[in-house]
Amino acid sequence: MPTPQHNRCFRLRRRPDGRVTGANLELVEEPIPELADGQALVRTLYLSLDPSNRIWMSEMRSYMPPVPLDAVMRGLGVGQVVASRRKDFPVGSLVLGWTGFQDYAVMDDATDEGPYTRLPEPLPAPLTMFLGALGHTGITAYLGMIDIGRPEPGDTVVVSAAAGAVGSIAGQLAKARGARTVGLAGGAAKCAHVVGKLGFDVCVDYKAADWRQQLAAAVPDGVDVNFENVGGVIMDEVLLHLNIGARVALCGMISQYESADATSSWAGQLSIGQLIMRRASMTGFLVLDHADRFPEAIEHLAGLLGDGRLQSDENVVDGLENAIDCLNGLFDGSNTGKQLLRVGEADAG
Amino acid sequence: MPTPQHNRCFRLRRRPDGRVTGANLELVEEPIPELADGQALVRTLYLSLDPSNRIWMSEMRSYMPPVPLDAVMRGLGVGQVVASRRKDFPVGSLVLGWTGFQDYAVMDDATDEGPYTRLPEPLPAPLTMFLGALGHTGITAYLGMIDIGRPEPGDTVVVSAAAGAVGSIAGQLAKARGARTVGLAGGAAKCAHVVGKLGFDVCVDYKAADWRQQLAAAVPDGVDVNFENVGGVIMDEVLLHLNIGARVALCGMISQYESADATSSWAGQLSIGQLIMRRASMTGFLVLDHADRFPEAIEHLAGLLGDGRLQSDENVVDGLENAIDCLNGLFDGSNTGKQLLRVGEADAG
Repeated sequence: MPTPQHNRCFRLRRRPDGRVTGANLELVEEPIPELADGQALVRTLYLSLDPSNRIWMSEMRSYMPPVPLDAVMRGLGVGQVVASRRKDFPVGSLVLGWTGFQDYAVMDDATDEGPYTRLPEPLPAPLTMFLGALGHTGITAYLGMIDIGRPEPGDTVVVSAAAGAVGSIAGQLAKARGARTVGLAGGAAKCAHVVGKLGFDVCVDYKAADWRQQLAAAVPDGVDVNFENVGGVIMDEVLLHLNIGARVALCGMISQYESADATSSWAGQLSIGQLIMRRASMTGFLVLDHADRFPEAIEHLAGLLGDGRLQSDENVVDGLENAIDCLNGLFDGSNTGKQLLRVGEADAG
Repeated sequence: MPTPQHNRCFRLRRRPDGRVTGANLELVEEPIPELADGQALVRTLYLSLDPSNRIWMSEMRSYMPPVPLDAVMRGLGVGQVVASRRKDFPVGSLVLGWTGFQDYAVMDDATDEGPYTRLPEPLPAPLTMFLGALGHTGITAYLGMIDIGRPEPGDTVVVSAAAGAVGSIAGQLAKARGARTVGLAGGAAKCAHVVGKLGFDVCVDYKAADWRQQLAAAVPDGVDVNFENVGGVIMDEVLLHLNIGARVALCGMISQYESADATSSWAGQLSIGQLIMRRASMTGFLVLDHADRFPEAIEHLAGLLGDGRLQSDENVVDGLENAIDCLNGLFDGSNTGKQLLRVGEADAG
C-alpha cells in the first residue's frame, strides 16, 4: 500500500451550544506531512464515541483541557500503523490511542495526548472490544462498580443509562456479584433489551409518565448502590431512595454536558442533601487514573465474557463523515451499547 | 422545691415556609401530668438550637421523622431531674436528652425520641459544653473532619459557616492537624472573629461582592478538604476549586432547609459534576450513628480545650419564649458559635 497523501479530519471551529453541527466540527481534507524520525502514521480503524467528547468541546472545567479551537477533535481509537519511522511500532501494528476524529494520525510522543499502546498479536478478542468491553468502557464500569459501588449479594443496585456502553456492563458486573439490578433506560424497546439481553432484574422507562412510581416500585428495599451516568432529575429521584450507607459511583452526568458552556441553564441537583440524611457517599472516578488496574479489570471482564455472563453490546456506524450524527445519538437517546465509528479497514498484511 | 404544676411548651401547629413564626410554633401552657412508675420529670436548663430543628419542622425526607403536627417541638437539651419515679435518675441528676422545646419534659423510655444520658458528677466541664464543644456539636465536627475530611499537614481545608457552631470547631480541628484553614462567613466582623479568635488562616466574606475572587485567592493550591455546612452557591463555588482526590464532608446544607417544603424553589447544585472531574468524594454523616465513638471524640476535644488549642464559642439567649427568634437567627446569619437557649436554672441541691 502506498503511503497515503491526504487526511480527512474534523476540526473544532466553534464550541457547541446544544447539539453538535457542522458549524462546530468541520470536516476538512488536508495533506499528510512527511514523517520525521520517531513518528509513525496510524490509520484510524474504529473511533470510540463517548459523552466525554462533548465535554472536551466545551470550556467546562474537566479532567482534560478543552480541545483548542481549530484543533483536530480529540478521540480515542484503535488503528493500524501504515508508515513508520520508529522501531517499536512497525508497519502493520495494531494500536490503541488518541487518534482523534480523523482518517490518519501522526503518532508523536512529544505532542500526543497520551502514549499509544500496541495491541497483542494475535488479537485475543475482536478489535472493537478494545474500545468497548475490554477497553476504557468496560474498565470504567469495573472500577466504578467494584471499587466504589461494592455491591454485596442481595443489594439493590440502580444503574442509569443502563442500555448505554458503560451502564450495560456495570449492571451485569453487579448481577454477577449477586446483586439485584435495576436499570433506567429510555423507551420500552431499550427496557426490554436491558432485561431480556443484559439480564437486569427490572428496567424503568424514564420516558414513561409514571417513571417515578415505576422506580419506587422497583426498589421496595431502597437503593444500596447507584451507578450514575445521567445526573439531573434521574439522579435526584434515585437519591430519594438511598438506603443508609449507600454508595453512589458518579461516572457521568450526560444530562448536563450539552449545556456545559452555559452553566446558568443547568438543571441543578436538588437532592444532594439526601447524602446527609442517608449517610451516603458519592464518589467521582476516572478510568485514566488507574492504568495499574487495567490488567486486573481486563482479566475479570474477559472471564465473564468467556463464561457468557457478560454481553457486549456494540453499535457500529460506518464512515468518518458520520461522526457528528453518531455523537449526537448519544444525547438524543437513540444509541444502545458502545457507540463506534468504523473509519477504516485493517490491512490483513 | 414543690413539684411544678404547669409546663410551657412550643407545639408545631403548621409547617413553616421560610422563616418560622408564632403561627408555626405556638407557645402554650399546659398542666404537667402526674408521673407514672418509670417516669421522671426533667426541668430543661439549656436547649440546643440547630439548623436541623428547621428540617424536622418540614416534611423533608430526613434522618428522623418530621415532628407531627400539634406535637411538642423536638429539641436536644440538658436538664435536671426535679421529680422522679425511677431509681437511675434521682432528683437532682443532670441529664442530656430530647427534652423538646419546653420547660419540663416527662422522661419516659417507652415514648421518648431516645434515651436520656446522665451526666457525670461532678461535671468535668461547664454544663453548656455538653450541648456544644463536648456534645453533638463538637462530636459532629470531629467525625466529619477526622473520618471523612482526613486533612494532612499542608492540606487546604475550606469550612463554610466557619463562625457557626460546628464549622468553628471543624476548622480548629483541621488547624490542629497542621492544615491550612480557609473559612467562609458572612460579614467583616464574623470574618475577623474566625481569623482572630478561631485561628483560621483566612476567612472569605461571602456577603462581599467579590467573594468568588476572594475564595480563589485564598486557595491558590486548590482545596483538599471541604467541610460543608451551607450548600447552594457557596458549595458550588468551592467544588470548582477541588483538587484531585479531594474529600467533601457533607455535614449540612443550611441554605436549603428553609425551602424544604417547597422543593421546586430549591437552588439546585450546579457543580456536582466536579466530583467526577476531580475524582473527589462527598460523604454525608450523622453524629447519631456513632455513639461508640463519642468517648474518643470527647477525649480529643477535651484535650484541645485543655491545651487552649480549641476555642469554644457559645451564644446564650435567655428565656424559652425567645426560641423562635433564636432559631431564625441561625438562618439570617446573625448567630455566631453554638446557639443555646437558657430555659431554666439548675437547683444547686
